[in-house]
Amino acid sequence: MLTVTILGATGSIGQSTIDLLLQHPDRFRIGGLVAGRDVAAIARLAGDLNPDFVALADESTGPALREALAHTGIRNGAGEGAVLEAVARDADIVVAAVSGAAGLRPTHEALKLGRTVALANKESLVCAGDAFMRDAKRYGATLLPVDSEHNALAQALGDGRLDDVSKMTITASGGPFRTWTRERIASASPTEAAAHPTWSMGMKINIDSASLMNKGLELIEAHHLFALEPERLDVIVHPQSIVHGLVYWRDGAVTAGLAMPDMRVPIAHCLGLGERLTIARGRHLDLAAAGSLTFEAADEARFPCLRIARAALAAGGAAPTVMNAANEIAVAAFIKGAIGFYGIADLVERACEHFAAQYRSAPENVDEALAIDAEVRRWSSQAVATA
Amino acid sequence: MLTVTILGATGSIGQSTIDLLLQHPDRFRIGGLVAGRDVAAIARLAGDLNPDFVALADESTGPALREALAHTGIRNGAGEGAVLEAVARDADIVVAAVSGAAGLRPTHEALKLGRTVALANKESLVCAGDAFMRDAKRYGATLLPVDSEHNALAQALGDGRLDDVSKMTITASGGPFRTWTRERIASASPTEAAAHPTWSMGMKINIDSASLMNKGLELIEAHHLFALEPERLDVIVHPQSIVHGLVYWRDGAVTAGLAMPDMRVPIAHCLGLGERLTIARGRHLDLAAAGSLTFEAADEARFPCLRIARAALAAGGAAPTVMNAANEIAVAAFIKGAIGFYGIADLVERACEHFAAQYRSAPENVDEALAIDAEVRRWSSQAVATA
Repeated sequence: MLTVTILGATGSIGQSTIDLLLQHPDRFRIGGLVAGRDVAAIARLAGDLNPDFVALADESTGPALREALAHTGIRNGAGEGAVLEAVARDADIVVAAVSGAAGLRPTHEALKLGRTVALANKESLVCAGDAFMRDAKRYGATLLPVDSEHNALAQALGDGRLDDVSKMTITASGGPFRTWTRERIASASPTEAAAHPTWSMGMKINIDSASLMNKGLELIEAHHLFALEPERLDVIVHPQSIVHGLVYWRDGAVTAGLAMPDMRVPIAHCLGLGERLTIARGRHLDLAAAGSLTFEAADEARFPCLRIARAALAAGGAAPTVMNAANEIAVAAFIKGAIGFYGIADLVERACEHFAAQYRSAPENVDEALAIDAEVRRWSSQAVATA
Repeated sequence: MLTVTILGATGSIGQSTIDLLLQHPDRFRIGGLVAGRDVAAIARLAGDLNPDFVALADESTGPALREALAHTGIRNGAGEGAVLEAVARDADIVVAAVSGAAGLRPTHEALKLGRTVALANKESLVCAGDAFMRDAKRYGATLLPVDSEHNALAQALGDGRLDDVSKMTITASGGPFRTWTRERIASASPTEAAAHPTWSMGMKINIDSASLMNKGLELIEAHHLFALEPERLDVIVHPQSIVHGLVYWRDGAVTAGLAMPDMRVPIAHCLGLGERLTIARGRHLDLAAAGSLTFEAADEARFPCLRIARAALAAGGAAPTVMNAANEIAVAAFIKGAIGFYGIADLVERACEHFAAQYRSAPENVDEALAIDAEVRRWSSQAVATA
């Protein structure tokens, strides 16, 4: 019986994880269950799953949470201390699926406890990748990638040696603007940008898909997860989102990870810990029905965020931390209509230039990463306001 | 320094193997070098490669071979005894690439010596798969698949567990008749049938590609190599021949082996013994240049040989042995113009029916397999003659 703690239980990764855990009640039980501020949602989950401990990050929800769980006897708390208490509960697997910078501290705490961490929080590796990978090693933690692309790479890599890899490639759906001209993209609305063709995700991540910034972030994650130099990493556009990652070996062979676009597949791979879980209700791949898988080069002229992210990856140090913070503010400004679509790339590039000299070296720890994140957000918000 | 013995050195697999060995002279040396009857070709290779021993299967070539190698000091011989002597030379890897039934005995001899055998001879597993797999285990030999499809499956399987595999799929180019109607295929000429779209191979194997019998044979090989039941094996048509094999896991993930159609890729994988060789002059996969990978269901109505092979695999026992022998005669008859294209499937099916009762159990050893092979060939030749 494996104990699973879920950080970000009410989000989409959390929901998919719980769907899988409920399909295998003889194999899994729930340790900690953590979410942001939705008392009703977490109380419902707690009722279904009977976890050891429930925590909400928002301290003000404490009384309501206590009341909602009073009849269950499930221990609970609100605020950062409660979140860390949930992380500290005994667990075989921690699913780290809190989104955004808020995910850094609890994810890092799980690493420091030497846990097996199924990592869905992109920011951990983008903002503080060197520190996370160093501490994972130091504390004997295992990082399993939940992102479909990195999970596919891990599956395609298998027990092969990284020295034998000539290149790893992640695929991009290409987003809603894949076939649009630069002129048309320039005047795109937030609604148009958020219309993701294959995956169903949140607004911010959909806009990152439209700008290909999501692929830039994923290249940075892949760099840390697989210890591969930027030159051995690239992106290819594949609109059907069926091939998720490819490992090119130096003998000319290529292994690839495929699946229907369904997050339960990579999550199940992480939860299986080397074995494979059977998934009910999942869509299994049917290539004859798919008919055609197409591939095209990613166009950095129309999608400058990919170029900017590659530059940040190559620059190293805190450049990815800066880039990510500026992108968060820029995407929010685009959603509000304060800037146009290419305003996102412009703002991110300006932020990277502005902070290049100041933040040469990578953040040593989560506190440093969060401090840089906060400063760049302030600067970027001001840049939007005065634009 | 690894010693490699090549059975079938003058054939296309042999040539590709030698190309790779010559690219890595610091890693490999040649033990035995075996071919059929081409004295000039084997003498040229021996001059380049300085093997420990050279053998030709055709006993009558003995004097000419002796003379051709006299100045080199390389030991040599002709006839079956000499072939087995070449196999018996010390070797880390034996590449078993003699084609046809003639490959059974030397390949089996290598297994009995506990060698690591890179297997390209299809007939070993098709005609005597149970015996070969049993003896590989008994004598501690390792079988590495050279066929691009099975090699891709091995790479896609990695260190995964067969219990976790829901299905393995091999791809078929679909051959020259992929888009033809049944009527047009029925009157196809041998030249039309031999025009393979993606691989450059011999006449017999090209016609097997046109009939999809080659995929039937490969399903039988996969069944033995991976110990998978017929229900967990299938074929999909993929005209670009870039994806060669796919492993479907029970959690919905799929891993695949891809490469440009170049036999040096799977051979290099075998010769690397877990490491990867760098290949010069190989064509590396460029998916953006390929553009589109298409997939369609295999049509057993237009390609009855695939249905017949599946039935032989399901029937087990000596049915595959019978089927393979009848197919050899039928393809030869088709090439000579004695029967039409669908005459191949008709003859094979009649042979399978005729011998079904007589050969229920699988051949216990190579001698039994060869005896069945010979009898079915006699019967099939007579059937052609009296048709």
